[in-house]
Amino acid sequence: MMQKLLAEFVGTFVLVFGGCGSAVFAAGIEGVGIGYMGVALAFGLTVLTMAYAVGGISGGHFNPAVSLGLAMAGRFGFGDLAKYWGAQVAGGIVAGLALYLILSGMDGFEGVGGFASNGYGAASPHGYGLMSVLLIEIILTAIFLIVILGSTAPSAPVGFAPIAIGLSLTLIHLVSIPVSNTSVNPARSTGVALFADGPAIAQLWAFWVAPLIGAALGALIWKALSPSEQDPA
Amino acid sequence: MMQKLLAEFVGTFVLVFGGCGSAVFAAGIEGVGIGYMGVALAFGLTVLTMAYAVGGISGGHFNPAVSLGLAMAGRFGFGDLAKYWGAQVAGGIVAGLALYLILSGMDGFEGVGGFASNGYGAASPHGYGLMSVLLIEIILTAIFLIVILGSTAPSAPVGFAPIAIGLSLTLIHLVSIPVSNTSVNPARSTGVALFADGPAIAQLWAFWVAPLIGAALGALIWKALSPSEQDPA
Amino acid sequence: MMQKLLAEFVGTFVLVFGGCGSAVFAAGIEGVGIGYMGVALAFGLTVLTMAYAVGGISGGHFNPAVSLGLAMAGRFGFGDLAKYWGAQVAGGIVAGLALYLILSGMDGFEGVGGFASNGYGAASPHGYGLMSVLLIEIILTAIFLIVILGSTAPSAPVGFAPIAIGLSLTLIHLVSIPVSNTSVNPARSTGVALFADGPAIAQLWAFWVAPLIGAALGALIWKALSPSEQDPA
Amino acid sequence: MMQKLLAEFVGTFVLVFGGCGSAVFAAGIEGVGIGYMGVALAFGLTVLTMAYAVGGISGGHFNPAVSLGLAMAGRFGFGDLAKYWGAQVAGGIVAGLALYLILSGMDGFEGVGGFASNGYGAASPHGYGLMSVLLIEIILTAIFLIVILGSTAPSAPVGFAPIAIGLSLTLIHLVSIPVSNTSVNPARSTGVALFADGPAIAQLWAFWVAPLIGAALGALIWKALSPSEQDPA
Repeated sequence: MMQKLLAEFVGTFVLVFGGCGSAVFAAGIEGVGIGYMGVALAFGLTVLTMAYAVGGISGGHFNPAVSLGLAMAGRFGFGDLAKYWGAQVAGGIVAGLALYLILSGMDGFEGVGGFASNGYGAASPHGYGLMSVLLIEIILTAIFLIVILGSTAPSAPVGFAPIAIGLSLTLIHLVSIPVSNTSVNPARSTGVALFADGPAIAQLWAFWVAPLIGAALGALIWKALSPSEQDPA
Repeated sequence: MMQKLLAEFVGTFVLVFGGCGSAVFAAGIEGVGIGYMGVALAFGLTVLTMAYAVGGISGGHFNPAVSLGLAMAGRFGFGDLAKYWGAQVAGGIVAGLALYLILSGMDGFEGVGGFASNGYGAASPHGYGLMSVLLIEIILTAIFLIVILGSTAPSAPVGFAPIAIGLSLTLIHLVSIPVSNTSVNPARSTGVALFADGPAIAQLWAFWVAPLIGAALGALIWKALSPSEQDPA
Repeated sequence: MMQKLLAEFVGTFVLVFGGCGSAVFAAGIEGVGIGYMGVALAFGLTVLTMAYAVGGISGGHFNPAVSLGLAMAGRFGFGDLAKYWGAQVAGGIVAGLALYLILSGMDGFEGVGGFASNGYGAASPHGYGLMSVLLIEIILTAIFLIVILGSTAPSAPVGFAPIAIGLSLTLIHLVSIPVSNTSVNPARSTGVALFADGPAIAQLWAFWVAPLIGAALGALIWKALSPSEQDPA
Repeated sequence: MMQKLLAEFVGTFVLVFGGCGSAVFAAGIEGVGIGYMGVALAFGLTVLTMAYAVGGISGGHFNPAVSLGLAMAGRFGFGDLAKYWGAQVAGGIVAGLALYLILSGMDGFEGVGGFASNGYGAASPHGYGLMSVLLIEIILTAIFLIVILGSTAPSAPVGFAPIAIGLSLTLIHLVSIPVSNTSVNPARSTGVALFADGPAIAQLWAFWVAPLIGAALGALIWKALSPSEQDPA
C-alpha cells in the first residue's frame, strides 16, 4: 500500500504542477503564450505520462473523483478510498506550494492572482454562473469516467488506456476552461485554492461536489453500457 | 442491441458536446482562445477517446455517414442502419441542448449565434459557396472512410485504429473549418442546427447529402484498394 | 501492383490535400487561424493516418524521396521506383487541382497567391537564401528517412511506425516552414507549384534535388547505425 | 559501442536541431508563429521519434542527465557514462552549428540573439531568478526520469515508452519555457550556448547542475516507488 500511496502522491503532484503550472507560467504571455490549448494539452499529458510511469503501481487515479467512480464500478475497494484521497490531496497541495515558490521568484512578483483556481460567477474565467459550472463539471467528469472504465475494460486493447484517458482530459479542458477553469478533479482544485487570491476557498465545495456526482454518474452509465462485466475489486 | 444503441448515443453526445462545445465556449476568446486548431483537436479526441471507451460495444461509429460507409463495405448490416442513425441523431441533439443550457448561463448572454453550425455561402465561416462546400465535404468524408476501413482491416495492427481515425478527424477539421465549419457527420450538424440562429436548418440538407455521398465514395475507393477483403457483415 | 499504385496515389493526394489545404484555407486567418503549428500538425497527420489506412498495401511512401531512400536501404526495389514516383506525383497534382477548385469558390476570390508552394530567396516565407533552404531540406529529409528506416526495422515494436513517422513530419514542419515552407517531398512541391502564382515552377528543381539528396544521406546514416540489417527488397 | 555512440550523437543532434530550431526559426513570428506551444511539441517529438528510430540501438538517452539517472537506477553502466556524454554533447554542438549556418542565410540577418539558450535572472525569458530556475529544472528533470524509468520498466506495456517519454518532454516545456527556457538536458543547453549572444556560457553551469541533481532525485524516487525492481545494468 505504501508504494501505491506514494505513486498517487507523485502522480497528483505532477498533474497539478504540470497542468496548473502551465496555466500560471505560460498561458497568458502575449504573442507566444500557450493559451487555453496549451494548458489543455499539459493537463492531458500529465495523466498520459504518469499513467504509463506509475499506473502499474497504483492504478494511476491521481483524482478523488476517479477513485470514487472506480470503486462504484467495482474496480477499486471502497476501503482504500480514504487513503487514496489523502495521498492525492497531499500531492496537489505540495504541487501548489512548489508553484508558489517558483512564481514568487519572478522579477516584479506582486501576488499569485487566481493561481489557476476554479470558480463560478465572477470567478469563472468568462462569467458563467453556478448552474452552468455544476452542469459542465458533472457532464465532463461522467465522460472522463466512461473513458477510464471503457478503455481499461478487459475487452479493450492492452496498453492504450493512458493515451485515451490522458487525451480525454485534454478534450475536457478544451471545452471547459472558459466556463469553470476546469476541475473534474477535487485534488487539483484544492491544491491551488489554498494559495490563490480571491474566492477559491469559498467556492471549493463546488469542485468537490460536482466531480464526485459526475464520477458516480459515469460509473452508472458504464454499468448500463456493459452490464455483463464482472470485476472483483 | 440496446447496449450498442446506448453506446452510439453516448459517443455521439460526446462528439457534439466536446467538439461543438470547444467551438462555442473556447475558440474565439481573444489572446488565449483555442482557435480552429483547438476545435480540430477536440473533435478528433472525442472520437479517439470514445472509440477506445465504447468501440468494442457498438463499433464506435458516432456518425450516420460512417455507418452507411461501413454497411456499403460489408462491415455493418444495412438492417441496423436506421437504428444506429436514430441513436446518433438523438445523441447529437441532446448534446446541443446541454450546450445551450450551459451557454445561456453566461453573464451577458444574448443568444447562441451560429452555435458551431455548418453552412455555405454567407453562412460559411469565410464565404465559400455551395459547390466548394459540397466538394470539400465529399472529399473529406471519403478520406475519413478510407482511414476507418483501412485501419480496422484484418491486416492492420491491432489497437491503433482509434488513434488513426480520431486524428484523421482532427486533420479534416484543420483543413475545412474555414470552408464549411466542417461537418462530415450529419448527426453533428443536426444536433446544433436545431438551436442555432441563422440559416442552419435551411442548409442542413447539404450536410446530410455531402457526407453520405462522400462515405459511399470512400467505401468504393477502399474496395478498389483492397479487392480481396471478404468481410461478412 | 495496381493496388499499390492506387494506394500511393490516394495517400499522396491526402498528404497534399490535407497538408497544403490546411495552409491555404486555415493558416493565416486572423485570431482563430491554425498558423504554422496547425499546418505542421496537418501534414504529420496525413502520413500518420494514411500509413495506418493503406501502409499495408503499398508500404505507405507517399513521397518520391522516401521511395528512393527505402530503395537505397534495400527495403524497396529500384525497379518499382519510377512507377511509385508517377503515382505519387499524379496524386499530388490532382490534390492541387481539387484545392484550386474549392478555393476559387470563395467569395471575393482573386487568385491563389503562393498556394502553399515551396521557395527560396524572395519566395521563402521569411527570406532565407538558397543555401539555407538546400541545407535544411537535406538535413530534415535525412532525419525523416532515419525515423522511417529505424521505426520500421525488424527490431522496432510492431504497429507504432506510423505514429513515429507521421509525427516526425510534424516536427520537420515545426522547424522549417519559415525557411522553405517545408518540402522534404518532391510530389508535394510539384502538386501545388503547377497552380501557384510566383516563381514556384522555376524553383521546383531545388525541392526535387534537396529531398532526394537528403533521403540518400539518411539511408547511408541508417546503414552506419545498423550495419547488420539484412533486408532483401 | 560505435553504433550506440553514433545513435546518441544523431539523436541528440535531432533533439537540438528540431527543438531549438523550432524556437529559433518559428516561435516568434507574428500571427502564424508556433509560439511556446509549438516549441514544446517539437522538443517532445524529437525524443518520441528518435526513440522509435534508434532507441533499440543505444537506449535513446540523448541527454547526459538521463544517462546519469539510468545509471543510478541500475539500468545503464556507469562505465559507459563518459562516452555517452561525449557523443551527446558533440551531437548538440553540431546541431547548434547547423542552426547557425541556416539562420545566417536569412535576408537581413544581424546576429543570433539568445539562440534558444537557457538562462536565469535577466536571461530568463520572463525574469525568473536563479532559485526559481534551479527549483523548476530539478523538479522537472526528476519527473522526466520517473516517466522514463516507469514507462520502460519490465511491467510496463511494450512499445509505448517513446510516446510517454517524448510527450513528458512536451509537458515539461509547456510549464517551464517562460521560466528557464527549459533545459532538463545539459547537452541541449551546451549545444546552443556556444553560439548564443548574451550570458549563456556564463550561466551554463546551472543547466548542468540542476538537471543532473534532478535526474538523481528522480532515480531515487523511482527506487522508492518500485523497490522490488532488479535490473542488472
